[in-house]
Amino acid sequence: MRVRVDLNISLDGFATTEGGTPDNPMGEDWNRLTAAYVATRTFRERVFHDTSGKGTTGVDDRYAAAYFDAIGAEIMGAGMFGFHNFPDDPDWKGWWGDEPPFRVPVFVLTHRKRDSIEMKGGTTFHFLSAAPQAVLEQAIEVAGGKDVRVGGGASTVRDFLKAGLVDQLHVAIAPILLGRGINLWNALRGFEGDFKITTETAESGTVHVTFARS
Amino acid sequence: MRVRVDLNISLDGFATTEGGTPDNPMGEDWNRLTAAYVATRTFRERVFHDTSGKGTTGVDDRYAAAYFDAIGAEIMGAGMFGFHNFPDDPDWKGWWGDEPPFRVPVFVLTHRKRDSIEMKGGTTFHFLSAAPQAVLEQAIEVAGGKDVRVGGGASTVRDFLKAGLVDQLHVAIAPILLGRGINLWNALRGFEGDFKITTETAESGTVHVTFARS
Repeated sequence: MRVRVDLNISLDGFATTEGGTPDNPMGEDWNRLTAAYVATRTFRERVFHDTSGKGTTGVDDRYAAAYFDAIGAEIMGAGMFGFHNFPDDPDWKGWWGDEPPFRVPVFVLTHRKRDSIEMKGGTTFHFLSAAPQAVLEQAIEVAGGKDVRVGGGASTVRDFLKAGLVDQLHVAIAPILLGRGINLWNALRGFEGDFKITTETAESGTVHVTFARS
Repeated sequence: MRVRVDLNISLDGFATTEGGTPDNPMGEDWNRLTAAYVATRTFRERVFHDTSGKGTTGVDDRYAAAYFDAIGAEIMGAGMFGFHNFPDDPDWKGWWGDEPPFRVPVFVLTHRKRDSIEMKGGTTFHFLSAAPQAVLEQAIEVAGGKDVRVGGGASTVRDFLKAGLVDQLHVAIAPILLGRGINLWNALRGFEGDFKITTETAESGTVHVTFARS
């Protein structure tokens, strides 16, 4: 069992959703940041339910497939779930439609009191307010020996990284400079010391860097 | 003729010389940041005058060789020359010994009045106080059609980048997190818009990213 993080960040370290509008709540930055990932065959199939077989099949797709492999539970912040964008909608069920791509229990960190929501395809959203260590214990319990992912956003991920709770951090670095948002690397000097680092370049220009606890 | 920049930076964007001591003026961070570059056969030959043929010969060495190729003049800040570390030494001639690796005219940006210094091997240090555009004009003039490099440090490079004077920016990203110093990427949002970007990974784990004006 490992605790895993996979994030899309810019070359200058930002994993941002700033600049959103009502029509485009994630913002243009988000589209540019995730373009190579969204283009993969795995993402199209898993998130868009596009079974046409279209999409890229190179290095980025290999990481996309690994993203969904062997995960038994997911943890995410309120922002990633969408509570910051839709604070007043009592029926908000996340960005991912009726059949979200997770297919496992998802623990959403929020101070809101919400009943759990069972979605199609195996995803159940649970809502709780808890420290990283405490929610992680719950996630490990339900993951049944599989990995637990801390999905995002960046500030939630940073909380888990700084608490030393992450075993594998994979960042897909888009070669663009966003210059704003939450910087994943802020005050993580020396973080790499406990990890083995591998780097790999995709056809898209995306740079995949993986920190794995050795 | 192109204006070129090549910098070693950390994954979090720092191109630092902080943490220096009298015995180790560039600091441990500098050693970690430049380890893969210093290990190349080209660097050993060109900077250390080691003609034994030792050193790495892979992707990093290819970039090291390109570093010295077709450069006709160099521009550097006072800090890169060493004036901040040795402010009171009137005989200071830089970090590079009697025969520096540049072998071309080098324009050192400083408010100090110093006579030019002719070194062995073709390097001449000129000292001047001028704005980026003005020193660049002088450097282009003496470069005789070859490229001009803005060598560093990071703040000097940033001045040239922000003034739109750089045609090719190559960064060698060491997969370490320094968390302090001058961040190359600070406030460069959208910089990549005018450039074609290529990414490549070296055997050392160093990620080479090149922005070339298209």
